[in-house]
Amino acid sequence: MTRIVMISTGDEVLQGDIVDTNAAWLSQQLNENGLQMSWRLTVADELSDLSRAFSEASQYADWIIVNGGLGPTSDDLSAEAAANALGEPLKEFTSWIDVLLERYQSRGRVMPESNRKQALLPVSAVLIDNPVGSACGFVIELNGARLLFTPGVPSEFKLMVKEQILPRILDAVEVTPPAMYRWLTFGLSESRLNDFLGKIELLEGMTLGYRSAMPSIEVKLKVVQGIEQQTVEHVISQIVDALGDNLFCHHNKGFAAEIQSLMLSREASLALAESCTGGMLASELVALAGSSAYFQRGYVTYSNEAKQQDINVPAQILEQYGAVSEQVAIAMAEGARAKAGTDYALSITGIAGPDGGTEEKPVGTVGFALATPDRTYSQLLRLPNRGRGLVRSVAAAMAMDMLRRYLIGKPVFGEYEFIKRVSSA
Amino acid sequence: MTRIVMISTGDEVLQGDIVDTNAAWLSQQLNENGLQMSWRLTVADELSDLSRAFSEASQYADWIIVNGGLGPTSDDLSAEAAANALGEPLKEFTSWIDVLLERYQSRGRVMPESNRKQALLPVSAVLIDNPVGSACGFVIELNGARLLFTPGVPSEFKLMVKEQILPRILDAVEVTPPAMYRWLTFGLSESRLNDFLGKIELLEGMTLGYRSAMPSIEVKLKVVQGIEQQTVEHVISQIVDALGDNLFCHHNKGFAAEIQSLMLSREASLALAESCTGGMLASELVALAGSSAYFQRGYVTYSNEAKQQDINVPAQILEQYGAVSEQVAIAMAEGARAKAGTDYALSITGIAGPDGGTEEKPVGTVGFALATPDRTYSQLLRLPNRGRGLVRSVAAAMAMDMLRRYLIGKPVFGEYEFIKRVSSA
Repeated sequence: MTRIVMISTGDEVLQGDIVDTNAAWLSQQLNENGLQMSWRLTVADELSDLSRAFSEASQYADWIIVNGGLGPTSDDLSAEAAANALGEPLKEFTSWIDVLLERYQSRGRVMPESNRKQALLPVSAVLIDNPVGSACGFVIELNGARLLFTPGVPSEFKLMVKEQILPRILDAVEVTPPAMYRWLTFGLSESRLNDFLGKIELLEGMTLGYRSAMPSIEVKLKVVQGIEQQTVEHVISQIVDALGDNLFCHHNKGFAAEIQSLMLSREASLALAESCTGGMLASELVALAGSSAYFQRGYVTYSNEAKQQDINVPAQILEQYGAVSEQVAIAMAEGARAKAGTDYALSITGIAGPDGGTEEKPVGTVGFALATPDRTYSQLLRLPNRGRGLVRSVAAAMAMDMLRRYLIGKPVFGEYEFIKRVSSA
Repeated sequence: MTRIVMISTGDEVLQGDIVDTNAAWLSQQLNENGLQMSWRLTVADELSDLSRAFSEASQYADWIIVNGGLGPTSDDLSAEAAANALGEPLKEFTSWIDVLLERYQSRGRVMPESNRKQALLPVSAVLIDNPVGSACGFVIELNGARLLFTPGVPSEFKLMVKEQILPRILDAVEVTPPAMYRWLTFGLSESRLNDFLGKIELLEGMTLGYRSAMPSIEVKLKVVQGIEQQTVEHVISQIVDALGDNLFCHHNKGFAAEIQSLMLSREASLALAESCTGGMLASELVALAGSSAYFQRGYVTYSNEAKQQDINVPAQILEQYGAVSEQVAIAMAEGARAKAGTDYALSITGIAGPDGGTEEKPVGTVGFALATPDRTYSQLLRLPNRGRGLVRSVAAAMAMDMLRRYLIGKPVFGEYEFIKRVSSA
C-alpha cells in the first residue's frame, strides 16, 4: 500500500488557534480517490523540529504532503528546513521571481522585497506552480520519499492538491477511485444505526461508515471499482430499507436542501412561526440560494405579545395551556399560514433551557405543528436536554422532518431514539 | 523546555470524518498554563504504526498524551501497542474490573463481557481513574518519557486532563500560568490589526496573538507571571486605543453576548426585521439564555408581501427604491419598532447572492437601519462578496455593531476595511 503522510506546520494550527481544515479536507480527497492517509504530523515553526520531521517521515512514507510555512515572513521555515534535511543549500529560483514580477506588473503594482524569500528553495527542488498566490509549491526527494510542499492558505492549498498533487500521486500509484454513496439520517443514534446496518452483508471492497453531524448522522458506503452494479444496488436497497423512515435524504447536502427540493418540485410555499428556535430554522432555509422561490416569511414570536399580535394566537389559549403546548403550536402554525397565505406553515415553541423548565414541562419540551390546506398536525415532544444549542437544532430538524414526511406521503409523526412523544394530534 | 507531544489515534480523526476538537482544546489548556505542545501526531488504528509512534515520540518528548483507542472493540489498540513498544505482556487489572462491576451493579445492570478488554493493560502501567466512562486511563514510562493514555470521548478526555493530567505535569515542571486578555474586533483585517498593534512595544514575556473567527477577529495578549500590573495595564490601554471603534468587546464570548449585556443594563427592548439574513441575527441573539429579557420578536420578511403586510413597508417605497435600499431598510426598522412597541429595532435587507446582483446593486449590497425613540439611522453598504454565507454573517454582525455603537454613544456608522459605504442618513 502507498504510504501517504501529511505534515502540517504552524504554531496557529498546533496551538489550536486554527482548526486544521486543510487536513480533514485532504484526507477526504485521498479517501474518495481510493487512497489513505497513514498518519499526520503537526509541527511548530521550529527549524530543527521541522527538518527532523521531514527526515523521519521520509524513512516511512512514499508521499509526504507538507502544508504551510511558505510565506514571506521569518517564521516561514519549510524551505530552509527541507534544505537542512537534504544537506543542501538554498538557491534563488529566478523563474518564480519572474512570475511574481510579471503578476505585480500586470496589476500596476510593485512587488514587495519580502516576496523574494518565497523563491529561496533547496537546490534540488522542482517547482509546482501556484496560480493564485505568491508561495510556489515544490517537490524534493529524500530517502526515496517524495515531499510535496504546499501553501497553508486553504484556497491555494486546495487548488494545488486538486490540479497538481492528486494527479501526480494517482498517476504513480494507479488506483481507481471508489464510488461513494451518502445518506443523511435523523432520529437514530450511531449505535442503533450500527445495529441496523451491521446485519447487512458487505462484499470485500465495500466499506460502510458514519459521520455524526448533529442533529443528523451521515451514512456512507464506499465501493471499490469492479463490483457489479447489480450487487451494489442490492446492498444499497438493503441500507435504504434498514434506515426506513429515518432516512432523510439520498445526499449529504443537508436537510434544508432536501426541503427546498421537495417544495420546489411541488411549487408549494412555506411560512414559519418560531419561538425557542428564534429564527434558526428560517436562517437554515434561507442559507440556500433559491429559497425565496418557496420560503415566504417567518415570525420569530419570542414573547407572548408577539404570538398574539403577529400571528393571532388567542390570549386565552396561551393562558390555559402555556406558551409551550400543542395548542399554542397549532395556533401559531395556523396563524402564520393564514397571515402569510402560504400552502404550509411550521411552528416550534419550546423550552431550550438551561432555565425555564418545570416538573411537568422540563427543559427540552417542545411543541410542533404543521398546518396544511387539509388539516393541522401537532405534537409535543421531550427532546434530550443536551444543552440549549442542541435542543434548538434538534427542534429545527424535527420541524423539517414533519414537513418532509408529509410531502412524501409518510406518517407525519416518526419514531425517534431518545425522544419521547408526550402527545400528538 | 518541557517537550509535550500529543498522539491522537483513530481512523475517523485521521480520515477527517471527525474534526479533532480534543487536540485544539488540549493545546489551549496547555497554553493557558504556560506550557506548549511541541508537536502532534495523528495515527490510524494500526498496531505497528501505533507502537512505532510511541517509541519514536518517547525518544524526543518528556510527556506524551495519547488520545483514543481505549474502547472495548477490536480496533481499539492503544494498550496493546503500548505493551509492544515496552516489550511487555498485557495483564488484566482486576481493580478496574471491580470498579466497572460495581458501577454496573449500582445501576442494576450487568456488565457486558466486552468491557473486560478495557482492563487489559501493559504490566508496568499505572491506572488513571475515569469517573465518567468505562475506559480507564493509564501511565507508562518508555525511554524516560511518560506516556499518558486517555479516552477519546471528549467529555471523558477533558475531565481526565483537567483533574489528573494537567496537575501532574504542572507539578513536575513548575510553571505558573500566564494571564490572558482577550478582545473581539470587527471591521479590521488581520494584516491591518498587525499594522496597528505591531507598533506597540511588548515586554519580554508578553505575546500578542490573533484568531480569525469571521466575521470577528479575536485579539489576545498573553502575559507571563511576574510583570508589574501597571506595565500590563499600560500595554492594554495602548491595545484598546489602537483598536479604537473597531473594538467590539473586552471578552471573547461573542457579539451577541455584548449586545445582551448592553441591552440588559439599559433595560431596553429590541425587535428585528430581517430579509437576506433570514432570521440569522434573531437566532444568534436567542442562542444565549436570558435573551428573552430584551429580545421581543423578529420578522423574517423575505418576500415583498411580507414586508408590506407584517411591518407596513409602503408598496410605493418598495417600487420606487427596490427592496434593497436605505429607504426600505428605514421603513422595515420603523415598521418593526411600531408593531413590536420596542425601544429599538434593527433591519437588514440585501443581496446575499450568488444570483440577484445588478450593476447598480451587486451581490453584497445591503441596507441597514436602526430605529430608536429619537431618530432612525440608516446606511447602504457594499459588503465583500465572499459567498452567500459570509455576506449574511457580516450583515448580521454589522447590524449588531450599529446598535452597540449607538448604545455606548459612539458614531453609529463605523469605518470598516473592505466595506464601501454607498450612502447613509
